[in-house]
This record gives sequence, structure tokens and C-alpha cells, in this order.
Amino acid sequence: MTKDIVLSPSIMCADLVNLENDIRELEKNGLNTLHIDVIDGDFSPSMPLGLETIKRMREITKMNFDIHIMSTNNEFFIQEMLKIGVESITFHLETSLHVDRYIQLIKNTGTKVGVALNPATPLSDLAYVLPDLDLVCLMLINPGFAGNKNEKQVPYAQQKIIDLKTLIEKNSLTTAIQVDGRVSLASIPDLIKAGANNLVLGSTSLFIPDNTLTENKATLMKVIGG
Amino acid sequence: MTKDIVLSPSIMCADLVNLENDIRELEKNGLNTLHIDVIDGDFSPSMPLGLETIKRMREITKMNFDIHIMSTNNEFFIQEMLKIGVESITFHLETSLHVDRYIQLIKNTGTKVGVALNPATPLSDLAYVLPDLDLVCLMLINPGFAGNKNEKQVPYAQQKIIDLKTLIEKNSLTTAIQVDGRVSLASIPDLIKAGANNLVLGSTSLFIPDNTLTENKATLMKVIGG
Amino acid sequence: MTKDIVLSPSIMCADLVNLENDIRELEKNGLNTLHIDVIDGDFSPSMPLGLETIKRMREITKMNFDIHIMSTNNEFFIQEMLKIGVESITFHLETSLHVDRYIQLIKNTGTKVGVALNPATPLSDLAYVLPDLDLVCLMLINPGFAGNKNEKQVPYAQQKIIDLKTLIEKNSLTTAIQVDGRVSLASIPDLIKAGANNLVLGSTSLFIPDNTLTENKATLMKVIGG
Amino acid sequence: MTKDIVLSPSIMCADLVNLENDIRELEKNGLNTLHIDVIDGDFSPSMPLGLETIKRMREITKMNFDIHIMSTNNEFFIQEMLKIGVESITFHLETSLHVDRYIQLIKNTGTKVGVALNPATPLSDLAYVLPDLDLVCLMLINPGFAGNKNEKQVPYAQQKIIDLKTLIEKNSLTTAIQVDGRVSLASIPDLIKAGANNLVLGSTSLFIPDNTLTENKATLMKVIGG
Amino acid sequence: MTKDIVLSPSIMCADLVNLENDIRELEKNGLNTLHIDVIDGDFSPSMPLGLETIKRMREITKMNFDIHIMSTNNEFFIQEMLKIGVESITFHLETSLHVDRYIQLIKNTGTKVGVALNPATPLSDLAYVLPDLDLVCLMLINPGFAGNKNEKQVPYAQQKIIDLKTLIEKNSLTTAIQVDGRVSLASIPDLIKAGANNLVLGSTSLFIPDNTLTENKATLMKVIGG
Amino acid sequence: MTKDIVLSPSIMCADLVNLENDIRELEKNGLNTLHIDVIDGDFSPSMPLGLETIKRMREITKMNFDIHIMSTNNEFFIQEMLKIGVESITFHLETSLHVDRYIQLIKNTGTKVGVALNPATPLSDLAYVLPDLDLVCLMLINPGFAGNKNEKQVPYAQQKIIDLKTLIEKNSLTTAIQVDGRVSLASIPDLIKAGANNLVLGSTSLFIPDNTLTENKATLMKVIGG
Repeated sequence: MTKDIVLSPSIMCADLVNLENDIRELEKNGLNTLHIDVIDGDFSPSMPLGLETIKRMREITKMNFDIHIMSTNNEFFIQEMLKIGVESITFHLETSLHVDRYIQLIKNTGTKVGVALNPATPLSDLAYVLPDLDLVCLMLINPGFAGNKNEKQVPYAQQKIIDLKTLIEKNSLTTAIQVDGRVSLASIPDLIKAGANNLVLGSTSLFIPDNTLTENKATLMKVIGG
Repeated sequence: MTKDIVLSPSIMCADLVNLENDIRELEKNGLNTLHIDVIDGDFSPSMPLGLETIKRMREITKMNFDIHIMSTNNEFFIQEMLKIGVESITFHLETSLHVDRYIQLIKNTGTKVGVALNPATPLSDLAYVLPDLDLVCLMLINPGFAGNKNEKQVPYAQQKIIDLKTLIEKNSLTTAIQVDGRVSLASIPDLIKAGANNLVLGSTSLFIPDNTLTENKATLMKVIGG
Repeated sequence: MTKDIVLSPSIMCADLVNLENDIRELEKNGLNTLHIDVIDGDFSPSMPLGLETIKRMREITKMNFDIHIMSTNNEFFIQEMLKIGVESITFHLETSLHVDRYIQLIKNTGTKVGVALNPATPLSDLAYVLPDLDLVCLMLINPGFAGNKNEKQVPYAQQKIIDLKTLIEKNSLTTAIQVDGRVSLASIPDLIKAGANNLVLGSTSLFIPDNTLTENKATLMKVIGG
Repeated sequence: MTKDIVLSPSIMCADLVNLENDIRELEKNGLNTLHIDVIDGDFSPSMPLGLETIKRMREITKMNFDIHIMSTNNEFFIQEMLKIGVESITFHLETSLHVDRYIQLIKNTGTKVGVALNPATPLSDLAYVLPDLDLVCLMLINPGFAGNKNEKQVPYAQQKIIDLKTLIEKNSLTTAIQVDGRVSLASIPDLIKAGANNLVLGSTSLFIPDNTLTENKATLMKVIGG
Repeated sequence: MTKDIVLSPSIMCADLVNLENDIRELEKNGLNTLHIDVIDGDFSPSMPLGLETIKRMREITKMNFDIHIMSTNNEFFIQEMLKIGVESITFHLETSLHVDRYIQLIKNTGTKVGVALNPATPLSDLAYVLPDLDLVCLMLINPGFAGNKNEKQVPYAQQKIIDLKTLIEKNSLTTAIQVDGRVSLASIPDLIKAGANNLVLGSTSLFIPDNTLTENKATLMKVIGG
Repeated sequence: MTKDIVLSPSIMCADLVNLENDIRELEKNGLNTLHIDVIDGDFSPSMPLGLETIKRMREITKMNFDIHIMSTNNEFFIQEMLKIGVESITFHLETSLHVDRYIQLIKNTGTKVGVALNPATPLSDLAYVLPDLDLVCLMLINPGFAGNKNEKQVPYAQQKIIDLKTLIEKNSLTTAIQVDGRVSLASIPDLIKAGANNLVLGSTSLFIPDNTLTENKATLMKVIGG
């Protein structure tokens, strides 16, 4: 079953002053995707990582870059990501006036495309574009308010994943269900059971402090059932 | 004369995936200031570096952080910088509705405060606040349009520095004159002659490719006349 | 049946230069809730009441403050209301990028939370957050265009209340249904019949000109069926 | 069957330096509607036609002006159109905070009112206002990105028309279904079959280059089945 | 000398739940101007008083209403004030794209017009419009950050008043110099000496707590030298 | 003397449904410049002419296109004009965060560049960029409020032209002084005397109703002193 689960380690949880080192360690441990949050400080009061850092990471690794744009100016950041050359771009529906255009912009370059939904956003907003998407990212916490360390997953996380899975199956699609926010060792089994198959991994799973990455990965694989 | 010139190496020109290493090398070479550009993608189409990276750098070095905010939301970024704890914060006058407030916000914490001016912005806009400032940053290129590698210094660079120096002396002040943008080995002597005493150093001086930092610094010191 | 209906007199209909007097009269007549509209002039061309007035009212009465924020900057006004200390805060879904966050911000302080919907906004937008809400406020006229005195309730007012009631019952919830806009003696019976149980009362019910508050309340209670 | 289909030639495809001439030709060919796009450069990077041109056209013809506003400031442009005097005004739902208000503003003057939906926008957003509308305009391409000449109709065009038709019939309404974007001789039969009865006609139907308008209209009528 | 000084009591310092009472007391004490701050929550994080309160005050007194708009949408609030009918309208230069237009809008109705300047704003921005103004309002603290009770007058307050007075005399004008912000019994003599002749009076002069208005006024008049 | 005066007929005053005809007539009368206002509805409540109309005019005439952008998004419209290919682009200083960048963008293509100033804007804002400009456009009325037909030239029109001329001569420059707004037969002599040498001509000079263009031009030339 593990083979169906995509692991997306969040670069934010690596050591930001020693990224090359940490990327090498991720590679050595067989991880092939980097989840990269691009937040503009206007979408929410957070701007974790810059574009130049992403460009530089691109030069040193062939890992899949799974970009999650949280911005009020999606077109600008999509274009920047396409210039850098990434494998997947996800943008938020809530700030998108031209949802279909952004999807086409990304797809036309052969890049995978995802739409991210804030916790409260209903799935009905995907009515017409779901078949065009490679991935739907369900935010299980409010994105970009990182200060709230004890913010919990929304109580309807489980239900929303189930609803999305139902929708995908009803349309005979293979869209990936990515979950983001407090995806911890404790919550992962339920998330997978509900239908999640792409996990954004941070400080409560793959980057649990004081353990090595190898140790954390081993524990994680057991939890996933690999 | 060298002793009067503050060297502000721009962190953007370091290796962004090996920052700890490069910071150590700067320290070893006797440099004690890091110039850090914070651009929000709205001020100009650029967002080089993120806040989390700055937080992490803060943890590993005691170098002076000389922050240059280029944003349309100065209050947010000033507050973030104050939380991180930096030595100097410069914001742009052109995007500041409450110039005096931002100055007080920064000064009240004991942090040094600067105002940055885009190339075309006249010095008359500083009429009342100049005495409150530790530093005025004169942009000699248009900030945040990094794509234009062959963008040249504005032709009035020299004159503007002279005008600012005159203004500072007329008011019997000791405000630092920082220059930013294509501050190269070739242009530095004239900039210093005009009155600049704080140099933002990038790829045309301290970070000239293919040389070591030590080599570049040696050349630089000769140019400065140390 | 009356006991189930919450009466929310709108402070806008009191005498704004003699608020203390009118608040005392409301208290004497057994009313214990004040409905307070906070409009920012950007959400719609209206800014009826200021924050300092609310702060001052807070000092003189223990009535429940039922705040209805109509703003394009919900986070700011929510935080201001939490500082003042109010019993209930309702914000508009249409201007909320982070719906779930605002709900949590409010709930975490023990304050009741509501979401308001403009007339045209579908109930499907509440899909995931309805269980978290104490109250849903259905606008039956377009909020903040007070100039249009002869603006009528939207023709689908009745149906929308029924739909919301159905949704609430289907989810086994006890969410209050607040109605706002031309809630008149004439329309109240039908609104209650449809499912409304929280009435924002203004110049067409509790504040009918030329009558005393006591007279208006007596008539109102008869209409409600108390 | 032709008689049920409204033909809406897009003025953008006429000769913009000889509008009077082209309007006369449209009149001679029995066309009585002008579809006029009003885009503000902020909704999308396009601002094809100005208000003064529309005012001047109004002076020289009695054709029905079918206005399609694509703006982030709907209230301003609606008011301008009402001043000019037009027969129908359609605005976009995605940029409308006060959907119901705009509908009433337009209807109260006796002007027909429509709502336009970007390709990805679900029909559920029309839940309460559909009965108030004379027309729903379904964008079949992303509006205002005219540069993309080879942009294709969205793959779900057909399905969305069918869904809208179903919704209209379910509510026993007579709302017109307007389709806009690559409405070509080749696609028209399928669009009509799906339920479209108002066609925005441009360079792939009524304005095919090198043919006369009379020739193009003749071909078009055959395709429509007149 | 007193006769030349205009006293502008700030309504914000009256009892906001008993405005009629306080207005009567101001009238009895021979004060004939009400200074009213209109802040929109966007100019600065403050929205003290609403438009409906101003409308209601207008109904009960003939005092001169001296409106100080602090907004990012000057045109809207100017128009609202003109509808209410006030004696003087002052707006901020920093948020005004069309300074001359706003001046004409106000002057054409026979209302007095003023321009307010934030502390840091240079007087050179008034170069061409000064002769059109009845009043210039110099902010001596940063407007709308009311939380900072211990915010002090800017150190250059004195100098800026002197500069403005010089400018006015050089142009042979009679423009009033209004000062706003910590205009206290202690600072008033120096402000008047520098050239101020219109004082916005608040909690450090006319509304000193625990004294009656009559007592405060008596002290104030002594300080002014009446 | 006439030969030094550039005549810039405003296309807005031509017949907008017969532009080709009117352009031909302008050509026949020896006029070789078209002044084209590009207003975006956000800068001021006006959007006279669209981009597609300009593109089409470009195809039919070799007259110099003198573009006057009035927008809050200068970069977008500058880029559009450069794509179309025009001889001169003027943008407003008041809405320009990156004044120097826009100047370079335009100059680098060999296009002439101008900066426009609203009536109240001081000349000191041009301190550093004046030498880079081919033209300064002084607005003598508030731009884009076309409804006010009886809006008069600002009283300081004359003085501002004189000041600009002085500044230009002091810097030994040859920058053109364009005047825009009620440039009438009656006001032209004084404007020229003050220093204006580029006249935007509209309904009070070259397009006086009921006269032919040839007649109007003859009168105009007499007034100019040709």
C-alpha cells in the first residue's frame, strides 16, 4: 500500500542555512519530492522562502519540486515557477479570478497542476475543473499562520477527504488527494484511510526534532504500512 | 579612510543553499554586516528571500543584520524584523503613508533606522525626518527588477549622493549614506568621493565569481583605499 | 413560542446623540441584546458607527453585544471587537479569505461566532463550517446601501431561510438563523414560520417612529406570538 | 428553430476605425444586437474599447446594446452603461461583492440583466438569483486574454450548457443561455444542441476574414438551421 | 490675542454615549466649532466615529463642523460630508491622487477647505495649491494610532509650523495653521508662538479628566493669553 | 514662431465611429501628431478609448502617436503601447512607484518619454529625472473628470508653466512643455508666452463644433502667430 502514497517533505522543515546538505540527505533516504511553500505575505502574514532560494535549489537537485503557491497574485508566481522549471504547481482557488486560465498556463508546459483549498472552501467550487487537475490539495489547517503552533487540524478534515475521494471516483478520475497541515504520525493512518494519498510532511512526521531523517522515515513507513 | 566605510555584503550573492558556510567565511574575513533584501513581490516583481531563512540566519550568527525592506506593506515587515531581532531596518519612503510612525516603531526598540529612496525620488521628501535617521539608502538602480542584468546605474547617481551629503552637513548630522545597485570596483571610488560611506556589495565587488571571498575583499580594500 | 426568538435591536435606530438614555430604555423593556453594525466604507458605501462609540457603550451596559462586521478587512475588526469584549461576532463570508481562521479566532476566546451571507450568496459555501457556527445571518436586503429606503426584501428571502433551516436540521445542529433587513411587523410572521429565530429589529418594528419603545415592543410581541 | 437563436455580433470584430460603416452593414443584414465587451485592464490584461466610443455608437444606431462588463469595479461600469442607455447589461459574478444589488440597479431601470461566469465558476453560485436574470453568459474561453489566438474552448463547455439548461427548466424559467468564446461555425451546432440560444459572434463565424458580412451571415444561418 | 485663535474641541473626547449633553455644554461655554475625525480603518488602524453619528449631531446643533478626513478614499467621504452639510472639510494630501479636484469639489459648495499633512510630509507638496486653501492642518503625532497614549509630539513640530507660517506670509495669504496631536496646556504657548492659530483640543487641554469643561476652558484661556 | 509649437490634436474629439475619415482629414491639414488618452477607469472615473482602437489606428496612419497614460498600472499600459509601436509615451508621476524604471523601459526602445503632472503636483518631484525626459505634460485641469464641462483651468496654470520653463533653462535642457486641459483659442497666447510649446488641442481649439477642421486650423494658426 505504501507504494501508492506520495511523500512530500516540506522544505520549510529542513535547515534553511544548510539546504544542500539536507537535500542530499533526503535523496539518500529515497525521497524524491520537495514540497515548497511560496507565500507572499499578503495571502497570509507569512513569507517563508524566497524565489532565489528555489532557483538555487533547482540547480543542485533533480528531486520533483511540488510548489504550493499561497498568493493573491497567482499569475506572477505561476510564471516565475514555470521559468525556474518545476514538476508540479498548486495554486489556491480562493484568490483565483481566472482558475481555468491558470490551469491551462501550467498544463500547457507539461507541468502537473493542482488546486489548493482552504479548510472552509467547499468542493463544489471544483465542479468543472476537477478532471483537468493532477492534484487537489486540502489544507487541514489555515495556511500561513505558522505562529499558531498549537493550531489543530480542522474537525472536518476526515469528512472533506472522504467527500473528495467520492467525487473523484464518481468522475472516474485519478486525481491525487494531497493533505497539508499537521499531517502527523498520529493522524496519518486516518487520513490515508479516508483517501489521502499524498502527504505533506513536516515537523510532526518526517522532521521530528532530535531524530535523524533515517529514523523518522523508518517510523513513518511503519505508520503508513509500508 | 577605509575605517569610515561600512561594508554591507548582500546575502543574495552568497550561496543560498549553503548559507551557514558562506556566513562563516564572511565572518572569517572580518566582515560584520549582512545586507538582507526583503522584497514582497508586490513592490516589484521579485521576492528573493523569505522570513524563515532570516530567522534561521539570526540563530547562527551575531553579524549585524542590515535589513532593506522593499514592500507595499511596511508595517508588517517592520514588525516581523523587530520580532526576529536585527540591528538596522530600512524601508522605502515611496510606499510609506506613515513615515514618521515607522521611524518611531523602529527607533523605540533601539534598532537603527533608515529610509530608502528609489532613484527618481527627490531628497526634499526627507525635509523633516532626516535628523531622525541613522541611514539613508540611495538606490542607484531600480530595485527588484533583477532580471535586467545589464541595467546600469542611473546617470544622476553621483549628483544625488553629493546633494544628500550637502544636506546632511547643512544640518550638522552624521547620517550614513548607503548606496545600493551596481556598486562595483569601478564605480566605488567615485561613489565614495561623492560622499557614500556605506556600500551594499554584490556580484560586481565582493562576490565577483570565480574569485575567493578573500581575494575579492583584498581587491576591494585596495579600491576603497584602505 | 416567543421564548425561542432572540430579539436584536439595531443600535443604529436608537438616538445616536443620546445612546446612554436609549440603552437604559432598552434594558428597562427587558431587551438584552444590542445588534451593532460595523461597516468600513469599503465593503459598501456606508460607515455608520465607530469603534470608540462601541467601546464607550461597552462601559455602560452589560447587554449582549451582537456585532455584525461588514468589512473587507475582517481580521482587523474581529481583533478590535475581541479587545473591546463582546458576546457575539458575525463576519461576512464574501470578504473572507480565511473563513476557518476567523471562526477559530473568535471561538477560542469563548465569544459566539456567526457568518453573514449577502442575499445572493449560496448556502453551499457553508458546507464545512456550519457545525462550528453559533449563528448564520441571512441578509434580506443588500447590506450598507442605506440610502435606498424603499429597497425591498429580496424575493427569495423566505426560500433561503427554509433552505438554511433544512440544512441545520439535516446536520442535527442548533445554529441560530438570524435575519437582517426590513424585518418588519408585516414580514416577521412569515420569517419566523420559515425558520428565523433571531430578528434584527429596526425602524419597521421596534423603532417605529412616533411610538414609544414600550408600545413598539408590545406590538412586536403580539406579532411574534408571545 | 433559427428564430429562437439570438445573434450577438461582437463589435470588437468590426473595423474599429470605421464603426459607423460596419454598424450600417450589420443593420442592413438584419442584425439587431451589438455585443460590446467592456474590459478594464484589471479584470484581465485587456481594455479593448472605451466608454466614449460606446456613447458615440449609441448616438448613431438603435440596435440593442448587449454590454458585457469584465471589471473589478462593476458598480462604476454599470452606472456608466445606465447613463448611456443600453438594452442589456451583463456583469461577472466572480468580481461582485453585491450581486443582488447590481441586479436590482440594472432591473430597476427596465434594462435587461445578465450574469457572466468564467469557465471554472460553478452554477451553484446562481442558486438564489437565477430567477431574477434575463441572461446567463457562459464564458467558454478565459475572458480578456485575447493574445492567445489558439486558446481552445474549455472541454466542459458542452456539459456546462446542458447543466444550465437543466437548471433553468427545473425552475420553469426562460433565462437566455449566452455562449461567448470561439463560437465558430464548427462548434455552433453542438452549442445549440446543448441548449445555447444566444451566440456571441466573432472572427470564427460572422466576421470570418475575406468574406463579406452577407456571405458570412448566409453560411451562419445554414449552420444554425434557419 | 485670543481672538485670533480658533478653538476646535475634538468630539472624540466628549462622552460618546451622551453627545447631545456634551454639545450643549460646549455651546454654553461659548465654543462654536466641533472638530470631527473621520477615519476609515484603512488609512490607519482606527475608525473612531461613524457617519450616522455625524448626521445626527448635525440635526441638533449649529456649531461649525470642522471635518478631518483620514481615509484612502477621500472622494467618498468628501461627498458624504457635503451631503450632511458641514462648514469645513480637511483631507490628507498623502492619500490624494487628485488634490486639486478635491479642493474644487469642496470650495464649489462654499465649504471651507483644508489639507492635512502627516508629520513627515514636506510643505513643498503644497507649492501650487496653498492659495486655494482656507486651512492647513499639521499633524504633530501620527494620526489614527490612538493606542499609543504616550506617543509624543514629533520633535520638528515647532519648526514645521514656523516654515508654514513663513510660506503663508511669503505668499501674502491668510491660510489658517491648524495643529493636531498632543496640543496640551504645556505645549500651546510654543505652538502659538511658532504661528499656530487653530488648535485641535483634546484630553490634554479642554477635556482634561476630572475637571469641568468650564474649568478647563478657563485654564486654557489663561494659557492662550486671552 | 509657429514652427516651434507642436500641435497635438486629441483623438477623443474626433468622430469615434469614423476615425479613419477624421485621421485622413487631419493628415490633409498637415497635422502629424495624434494625442491619445489612455485612461483605465481607476486613475479617474473615465475610460475613453480602448487598446484595440489604438492598434487599428496604428495600422492606417503614420502620424506620430503621442500617448498619455492615466492609469494606476503604468507598467501594463507602457508595455502595451510599446507592443503597438508609438512615437511618444507619457505616464503620470503620481501613480508611479518606479519612475526611473518606466522612463528607461520607454527610452530603451527609442520611444520618446514624458511625465505628466496633475495640477497640484510640484515640479520638485522631477528633481532627478528631468534631464531624461523629452516632454513634461502639465495638466491644467483635473484629468479624467470629463463630466465637468465647465471645469476651468487651474488659476496657477500660468505660473507652473513659467516655473517649469525656468527649471528647464536652468538645466540647459530642451524638454518640451506640453499643456493639456482647456487649451482654447483664448488661453493659447498666454500659455505660449509662459513657455508652453506643445499644445493638446480639443473642443475649444482645433475641434470647435460646427466649423470644419480647416477653418479651425486657420484660426488656430493665427492665434499661435504662425
